[in-house]
Amino acid sequence: MDIQPPEVLKSPLVVPAKTLMGPGPSNCPPRVLQSLSLPVLGHLHPECTKIMDDIKEGIRYVFQTKNELTLAVSASGHAGMEAVLCNLIEPEDKVLIAVNGIWGERANIMASRYGAKVVRLETAPGTNFELCQFEDAISKHRPVLLFVTQGESSTGVYQPLEGLGLICEKYDCLLVVDTVASLGGVPFYADRWGVDAVYTGSQKVIGAPPGITPISFSAKAQKRIFNRKTPVKVYYWDMTILGDYWACFGNPRVYHHTVSSTLLYGLREGLAMVAQEGIENVINRHKQCALRLHDGLKAIGVELFVSKESARLPTVTTIKVPENIDWTLITAYAMKHYFLEISGGLGPTVNKVFRIGIMGYNATNDNVDFVLRVFEEGLDLAKNKSSKL
Amino acid sequence: MDIQPPEVLKSPLVVPAKTLMGPGPSNCPPRVLQSLSLPVLGHLHPECTKIMDDIKEGIRYVFQTKNELTLAVSASGHAGMEAVLCNLIEPEDKVLIAVNGIWGERANIMASRYGAKVVRLETAPGTNFELCQFEDAISKHRPVLLFVTQGESSTGVYQPLEGLGLICEKYDCLLVVDTVASLGGVPFYADRWGVDAVYTGSQKVIGAPPGITPISFSAKAQKRIFNRKTPVKVYYWDMTILGDYWACFGNPRVYHHTVSSTLLYGLREGLAMVAQEGIENVINRHKQCALRLHDGLKAIGVELFVSKESARLPTVTTIKVPENIDWTLITAYAMKHYFLEISGGLGPTVNKVFRIGIMGYNATNDNVDFVLRVFEEGLDLAKNKSSKL
Repeated sequence: MDIQPPEVLKSPLVVPAKTLMGPGPSNCPPRVLQSLSLPVLGHLHPECTKIMDDIKEGIRYVFQTKNELTLAVSASGHAGMEAVLCNLIEPEDKVLIAVNGIWGERANIMASRYGAKVVRLETAPGTNFELCQFEDAISKHRPVLLFVTQGESSTGVYQPLEGLGLICEKYDCLLVVDTVASLGGVPFYADRWGVDAVYTGSQKVIGAPPGITPISFSAKAQKRIFNRKTPVKVYYWDMTILGDYWACFGNPRVYHHTVSSTLLYGLREGLAMVAQEGIENVINRHKQCALRLHDGLKAIGVELFVSKESARLPTVTTIKVPENIDWTLITAYAMKHYFLEISGGLGPTVNKVFRIGIMGYNATNDNVDFVLRVFEEGLDLAKNKSSKL
Repeated sequence: MDIQPPEVLKSPLVVPAKTLMGPGPSNCPPRVLQSLSLPVLGHLHPECTKIMDDIKEGIRYVFQTKNELTLAVSASGHAGMEAVLCNLIEPEDKVLIAVNGIWGERANIMASRYGAKVVRLETAPGTNFELCQFEDAISKHRPVLLFVTQGESSTGVYQPLEGLGLICEKYDCLLVVDTVASLGGVPFYADRWGVDAVYTGSQKVIGAPPGITPISFSAKAQKRIFNRKTPVKVYYWDMTILGDYWACFGNPRVYHHTVSSTLLYGLREGLAMVAQEGIENVINRHKQCALRLHDGLKAIGVELFVSKESARLPTVTTIKVPENIDWTLITAYAMKHYFLEISGGLGPTVNKVFRIGIMGYNATNDNVDFVLRVFEEGLDLAKNKSSKL
């Protein structure tokens, strides 16, 4: 052998049990974690395809849709964004992207690579858009597609969507919504609201591990995909064939790729737990926890980054870093002494905010109180430049 | 709620423990399965990036390379193929694809979608290529890239690679090798053999679950990626940024996507087990098992699909379906009575062959004897159209 077995692989695997209260991943419930150790199944075994069918039903439930083309992409939430864009965009298409944080920026990059002419609709980080802003931009630019992020995890902003579908329909524009960080934390109704494509993260409110991404397309979006003039660039995300592997179109299943049965187990169990609790209860639990967190933060004397109350995302709370405080001292303190994750900013909020996530299994009063206590401790120590940090 | 919680999610998850002796996935060893239930880690936590570093070393070991740009893609083996092709191909590039089964066909489709002018080098399913065929085609067409499958799992064919790197170098052609079904079952030396890009499956000999895919690029391939005239179409697989997330270029890590720590654990443990045994011993174990299987099959009186002995892939054995036998009776018998997977053909071998996989944890004499016994039983019953099927 030219290359010898690496020494690092002789050491044992070390995985501490942390409390993940950043913007995700969140902790998986024990039921989900246990399912991950079940034996691997073949990608076309009936027990595996049964689980895929269960998952489709679960995804339809959490998205509140009857969409035929509903499945989970075998990749991270990021890939959900790319899968939607590469299926719906053809070269030279004009697309409108709402940018108020990192996810709009990412969608802009991806859409451009697939040949789209991107028009950006922008608002300052920490704020959301008014419906009329969307209508003005759509009527002016007449894009084939509008991309909106329901929960901007980089800024902690919630984007209301009611009424947007009607505007899009009026101008024959597809409505694409990123719900990675919002789904299960705020209401979402794909069908009622006229959403044409949506994806979410498995590792946030749903409580499954990352690596598998729920996605759904309306009949209108599906038709557009099947009527493309050019093939979808990415074979791995080509819904015309991936949809057949997931038995979305009533045809016999066709091998497309080797799905990770391990991740299917986790996603299936996560969705089953959401269904068991009832998504309206899940949403309400997140709302209550967020209010408790916001009240607690006010009591501590820190300021939320999102000033408009209705624009605050329950799942990810952004807190302004107080003046003359080194934010890294607090996040490091929480991790070092409590294995608790509190995050810093991302993209436009780097060095400006803390981010506290309340998602899924972690959305409990106990966890909110825990994170508040540790945050306050850390903040006090940082103010005093304490040696206990 | 418009859509009610689905009934199917009220039933428990059912995952039987099978013996997977088709062309993959294979069974994961207990050490790997146990690791999958460990708590999820954040994608930039030091414990997580430590595991990523361990994995890079493990991948370098199994590929026998010192390549800087070595990492695991967060998607199935299929995506490994696409990630390599979309990074190395620019529109109008001429590429040569060796086709002797389904994987060459897939590479052809993918390369075409990325705008390549594809030249096909073909040989009949069940046969492999001679070095001179490659050289003739390369010198004639002068492609920028040659795609070869080391182990064609659809036909059970092994493609020797020694000497091919020198030919490619002579004509300034990148050598891309698919080792999804072969790595760990036959020797592979990326550096010694002059391979420019290679990927493999996690769920075969390595014994991890599917969904994460080892990949590596030579310095020459890396340079080509950084000197592209057009950006890589797929952001998710863009090695210029994904390589930074995996800390391949000596820069600070940059967030790219949320890696599945669950799959990292499994891959890390699978690689650690290969390193512990020593890859040369792993290869030898597969060779011995394959010979035992082939001898047993001869004793049963069936014929191997690959007539040339040196062209037989140890990891996937293809067996001609005897005349007047319904092959599905035998595979169904094995599954129904023993939860044992034996597969039928794929692509060019559909209805023509059985496929028996010997991979990783399942590459033992006991398993070979088990599959031989069940196969013979099933065949006898099928011949007699027995009611015991």
